[in-house]
Amino acid sequence: MSIRTISPDVLNTNVVRKNVETVIEDFLDERRKHSGQPQMARLVKLLKEFMADGKRIRPVLTVMGWRAAGGETGMESVVRVAASLEMFHTFALIHDDIMDDSDTRRGRPTIHRLLAGKRGDERTERFGLGAAVLVGDLAFAWSDQLLHTARLTSRQAAAVHPLITEMRTEVMLGQYLDLRATGELTDDVEATLTVNRYKTAKYTIERPLHIGAALAGAGPEAMAACTAYALPLGEAFQLRDDLLGVYGDVRDTGKSRLDDLRAGKNTTLVALALRAGDAAQSARLRALIGDPLLDEAGAEEVRAIFAATGARDTVECMIDDRYRQALRALDAAPFTPEAITALQQLAATATRRNS
Amino acid sequence: MSIRTISPDVLNTNVVRKNVETVIEDFLDERRKHSGQPQMARLVKLLKEFMADGKRIRPVLTVMGWRAAGGETGMESVVRVAASLEMFHTFALIHDDIMDDSDTRRGRPTIHRLLAGKRGDERTERFGLGAAVLVGDLAFAWSDQLLHTARLTSRQAAAVHPLITEMRTEVMLGQYLDLRATGELTDDVEATLTVNRYKTAKYTIERPLHIGAALAGAGPEAMAACTAYALPLGEAFQLRDDLLGVYGDVRDTGKSRLDDLRAGKNTTLVALALRAGDAAQSARLRALIGDPLLDEAGAEEVRAIFAATGARDTVECMIDDRYRQALRALDAAPFTPEAITALQQLAATATRRNS
Repeated sequence: MSIRTISPDVLNTNVVRKNVETVIEDFLDERRKHSGQPQMARLVKLLKEFMADGKRIRPVLTVMGWRAAGGETGMESVVRVAASLEMFHTFALIHDDIMDDSDTRRGRPTIHRLLAGKRGDERTERFGLGAAVLVGDLAFAWSDQLLHTARLTSRQAAAVHPLITEMRTEVMLGQYLDLRATGELTDDVEATLTVNRYKTAKYTIERPLHIGAALAGAGPEAMAACTAYALPLGEAFQLRDDLLGVYGDVRDTGKSRLDDLRAGKNTTLVALALRAGDAAQSARLRALIGDPLLDEAGAEEVRAIFAATGARDTVECMIDDRYRQALRALDAAPFTPEAITALQQLAATATRRNS
Repeated sequence: MSIRTISPDVLNTNVVRKNVETVIEDFLDERRKHSGQPQMARLVKLLKEFMADGKRIRPVLTVMGWRAAGGETGMESVVRVAASLEMFHTFALIHDDIMDDSDTRRGRPTIHRLLAGKRGDERTERFGLGAAVLVGDLAFAWSDQLLHTARLTSRQAAAVHPLITEMRTEVMLGQYLDLRATGELTDDVEATLTVNRYKTAKYTIERPLHIGAALAGAGPEAMAACTAYALPLGEAFQLRDDLLGVYGDVRDTGKSRLDDLRAGKNTTLVALALRAGDAAQSARLRALIGDPLLDEAGAEEVRAIFAATGARDTVECMIDDRYRQALRALDAAPFTPEAITALQQLAATATRRNS
């Protein structure tokens, strides 16, 4: 348990973020002190810096799910479970960056880049890759430690553990499907939405809400209401991410808007453009997307095809549809009024953000 | 819980292996059935085949630790925790093979090789690597699921979780230290023994015994006795592994005896030879060990230097010393007589094996 006091202003997202960050900082400081090995202290420092930024959307949703289902006492445990999800997400990001071979994340070098140093030397590249796999593994192990030290009641633990297992399995399946699809562009819009559902909608929105609600002892009706809100919102969140990957400003997103295109990510946006485009447009998209040397001029050409085929507008419409669907789900949800207000605000932020 | 009956012949290692394998098979079959996604079924199949072989030393030690500390009832839970450690070890092996870029394990292709297919194409290599990271991650997540469904009492869970966290953290630290040392040969024998302690002695022997003993409610004295037996035995186990990596028969070990040398593993054997060798011998070792194209003639030259410098004999003596130390620790241990007999046998097998 954190020694510092946890603020009780439970649905203020800034307060939730601060509380979760305090738990994580204290945890990592403890880990560093606990380790007799100087090398371990180095890895903890790396992890701490990597975790310094982030939207903390999963922790925020965990606390919201708990409040929505009527949770009132035992907030320290909820915040610690929320911190555990953030630590797990750190693991997922580190491994994703390895798989995508990304150089930057949130405007900083990725963990494998930090560990490998300058590109070029094959031995240090392999070291960076291997050591980053390990740093991710440590974050995974420590997310479990945060969970096990959250002082859950037996009933809470029994409710939460199966959800956590499913959350982990789903995001790994989503990432696997994404990996298989990367570099092989198709116009299979439905397949891109399946990846989206596992990798984002369930992992980022539905499961954190479920886990929070389960901590408050939610029954099947409240859990179903979480799903009805979370899946459309989660899909919209990812569709916004797809747009930001191509149109976002690096100063806001911390990520080059060439990365997704160079990596050949088969997003819904890309699939829609391939489906709507004529032969010449499709051929250009196939030539440009996935080219590791794509430059800004090439990216502009891709953007022009996204506009001309209507793919960009379609994605905006899809986001809006799903946003409205999430709001409608809230109308029927058996949640506390203050939680409904907070979830409405979160839906707006998640779908209209620029970072 | 497994539906099939668990045999009660608790200290027969073959029986323990069979029981653990039954739990794992049932678990993976359930996982495959549970998944709606055909791609997930493929990953489960891959994992099941990879797990088909193995010495199951950690599960065997978990059950021994439990019996040694007087455990009698609740064996189904103990076997499930033991299966959870085996699943975790599967994760560790898959990630180790990625970091070491090994092509084979237990006589079969490693997971990243199976997923990448033939060498050469950079895109499939990257896919194989990324997908193998994920398959390892799945094994990690599922080791937790096995643990959480072991129906532990609150007291057992509270005793076991911190040990599991430390076990995971220790093996990851050991692997990190090993990665840092690989490819940079030194005569720092003590550094190689530190890696050995974290990566093998604690992970393979001490922690599984501790976890088993904790399940039986062991007190500090029994835990200390586990450590006194486990650390020297674990070091001896790894030293035997180092020798088998260079002198073993691939038909027994399932692993080419060129792999460790080509990878430039800085084992205790190598460090001793560098320390004892003259300038010419050291220069030859540095030229040969770590050469990815080393052939059998080169390996023979390395073996000749290991013999001439006395490094091989020294390692045999170190194994014998540690074996005796482990046996002496048992003389003073507050364990049941049948467990002491089983631990004596295990010490002999672990240090005198050829696979």
